[in-house]
Amino acid sequence: MTASGFSLVLNATDGGARAGVIESPHGAVDTPAFMPVATQGSVKGVTPQELQELGAGIVLGNTYHLYLRPGIEVIEEMGGLHEFMGWKGPILTDSGGFQAFSLRAMAKLSDDAVVFRSHLDGSLHRFTPESAVAYQERLGVDVMMCLDQCVAADGSEEAVREAMERTHRWAARCRDAWKSSRQALFGIVQGGVSEEMRRESAEFITGLDFPGYAVGGLAVGETKAEMYEMVSFTGELLPVDRPRYLMGVGSPEDLVEGVSRGMDMFDCALPTRVARNGALLTPEGRINVVAARYSRVKGPVQEGCDCLACVGFSMGYISHLFRAKELLGLRLASIHNLRFVQRLMEEMRCRIVSGDFDDFAEDFLGRYRPTDEAARMAQKRRWMRERVGG
Amino acid sequence: MTASGFSLVLNATDGGARAGVIESPHGAVDTPAFMPVATQGSVKGVTPQELQELGAGIVLGNTYHLYLRPGIEVIEEMGGLHEFMGWKGPILTDSGGFQAFSLRAMAKLSDDAVVFRSHLDGSLHRFTPESAVAYQERLGVDVMMCLDQCVAADGSEEAVREAMERTHRWAARCRDAWKSSRQALFGIVQGGVSEEMRRESAEFITGLDFPGYAVGGLAVGETKAEMYEMVSFTGELLPVDRPRYLMGVGSPEDLVEGVSRGMDMFDCALPTRVARNGALLTPEGRINVVAARYSRVKGPVQEGCDCLACVGFSMGYISHLFRAKELLGLRLASIHNLRFVQRLMEEMRCRIVSGDFDDFAEDFLGRYRPTDEAARMAQKRRWMRERVGG
Repeated sequence: MTASGFSLVLNATDGGARAGVIESPHGAVDTPAFMPVATQGSVKGVTPQELQELGAGIVLGNTYHLYLRPGIEVIEEMGGLHEFMGWKGPILTDSGGFQAFSLRAMAKLSDDAVVFRSHLDGSLHRFTPESAVAYQERLGVDVMMCLDQCVAADGSEEAVREAMERTHRWAARCRDAWKSSRQALFGIVQGGVSEEMRRESAEFITGLDFPGYAVGGLAVGETKAEMYEMVSFTGELLPVDRPRYLMGVGSPEDLVEGVSRGMDMFDCALPTRVARNGALLTPEGRINVVAARYSRVKGPVQEGCDCLACVGFSMGYISHLFRAKELLGLRLASIHNLRFVQRLMEEMRCRIVSGDFDDFAEDFLGRYRPTDEAARMAQKRRWMRERVGG
Repeated sequence: MTASGFSLVLNATDGGARAGVIESPHGAVDTPAFMPVATQGSVKGVTPQELQELGAGIVLGNTYHLYLRPGIEVIEEMGGLHEFMGWKGPILTDSGGFQAFSLRAMAKLSDDAVVFRSHLDGSLHRFTPESAVAYQERLGVDVMMCLDQCVAADGSEEAVREAMERTHRWAARCRDAWKSSRQALFGIVQGGVSEEMRRESAEFITGLDFPGYAVGGLAVGETKAEMYEMVSFTGELLPVDRPRYLMGVGSPEDLVEGVSRGMDMFDCALPTRVARNGALLTPEGRINVVAARYSRVKGPVQEGCDCLACVGFSMGYISHLFRAKELLGLRLASIHNLRFVQRLMEEMRCRIVSGDFDDFAEDFLGRYRPTDEAARMAQKRRWMRERVGG
């Protein structure tokens, strides 16, 4: 099986960074591209039209969530995921594996299948490589992901190897199960933070000849330095002519670092998740708009930002909306953060084409103050332990 | 004091119903008009631009809430309530009395003032007729309301009379305290469900010569029949050339009944409040979109509706958004209900002008199934007992 109507055309490279266009049955996407997360078929609080206006070219849905609610059959009957959620552009879905493997959900794992409990009602369900592909085909998405097994960064070498080898066997089965030429299927490289395993995994997965490749198993509790090293190392093992998707990555500094290491696609719930806590992205880093010191600021959250929140409202008003727990606050903050990230992608694409991406990256990273590393890692490890175990 | 730049011009009457235009310093409003409720300076989940697009001409803010958070001084410093919330059209504020009188809030009542506790931090505050007007002047709103005392429908005749007489004394003090000619001050008629007291109150309040008049103390637990009778009776005692505002009323059937009895302005949180529970307004009555039977409906919530929710999304998708507790569901439902009510007002204005309002009212009321009266009253009385006592 190959995917018709799906391709990557590279327009420019600058150092490791790549700018191009992915063609898909639902239109073209400029890369590098950030995919807002529509877990349950909706980017929280934002309409598809607003997503398009703020520059998103492709969104991500979660097979696990959509399978449980409203159900694959309902979405199929409603005309597929595009029609259901009112999004006309391309959609990528994850395989559902990441959620099914979460400690709270997983009931039983064998080479045949992962058996898991619904987080909604505790009922038992079963994903196989074959069914994960079939569900995504029935959703009608443009890019499907292979079922893979991901372990947290502090997992043993043995655990990482076992997960990687299972991921390889499953990738081959997904490849065989793939029936729809209107949809592309991406392979996922695992291997933790081991160069040896990453090489082994990249060789195996690229040997299966997928239309695109994901770097999985990162942003799961390792240090940023380890992650960047693995992205560089793995990226160089992937074919130049296929999209490279760095899964689960999306803080502004990681997007810049990922693009500089040759990644083309990213997804992360961070911009919308932190927005709902009042954390707004600016060129200097995140600010907490709820803080009393912003309550009388007449200017926008970010000077020069063209988003709905910054053009229409003062920072003082948005600060009030959060303190008063008004719905509009969540919405405006989400739109600002998504626009911030999309503009960052636009700027990177532009600077790759003009050949001064490194200057841009240096300027951006020099100015942007990331969240404290120790705090970030503690939080991430806790989150991962709860989700996929060690 | 008189209000410059504030007037009502009647264009047509049909039976008791009136169609006209209120001119205000922030523009004209077609009447009869429904005011969406922006308690804390935001109609929940909806932007000012969306409000304008769905046909709202004037919105209502709550002085009590805005006084407590973010504070009158903050809003004043931010350029007034219009500038603060980004709404360019006219704004009416209530006086804050209704909330301050709530059983949970009120600490002490005298002729001088109502002393109440903040629902936010329990701190003590004091509203006098003079300060209630001063706060509204500082908010910069177009229409201010006198401080009044409202009692629940099952209050004793003595309680109703005492509240009415205090309301009269306070109305005279509000009239004297009114300094800003750019803002109109409305008087409020009280008197419960007693024709005698309503007549006495209307005579007293209209004797003070306000730019507009409100019918207060209704929709507080009396039957619909009693309310309609009091609206008819009181409406006839008010001067023809001033706006008549029926406070706190806004279910679709009550809007039609109120307009047919000569009311020009209405406000109610109902369309947005019930929307957040998934109750959507249709010509046949409210439907609960969360119900499983709507999960595969491909058509819109209401055939022919031109709102964002109905034009862009299926009922099945909106049903999913509610079951999945997605923010977008609250937003789409609020927009649909507000548009439903605004379109109802547009239709009524049109049919008053064309002289067949009665046919319209009969058709609408024949088709629209209101919420069960007994259930509604039990709910309302419980709510009122918690809020303002008996």
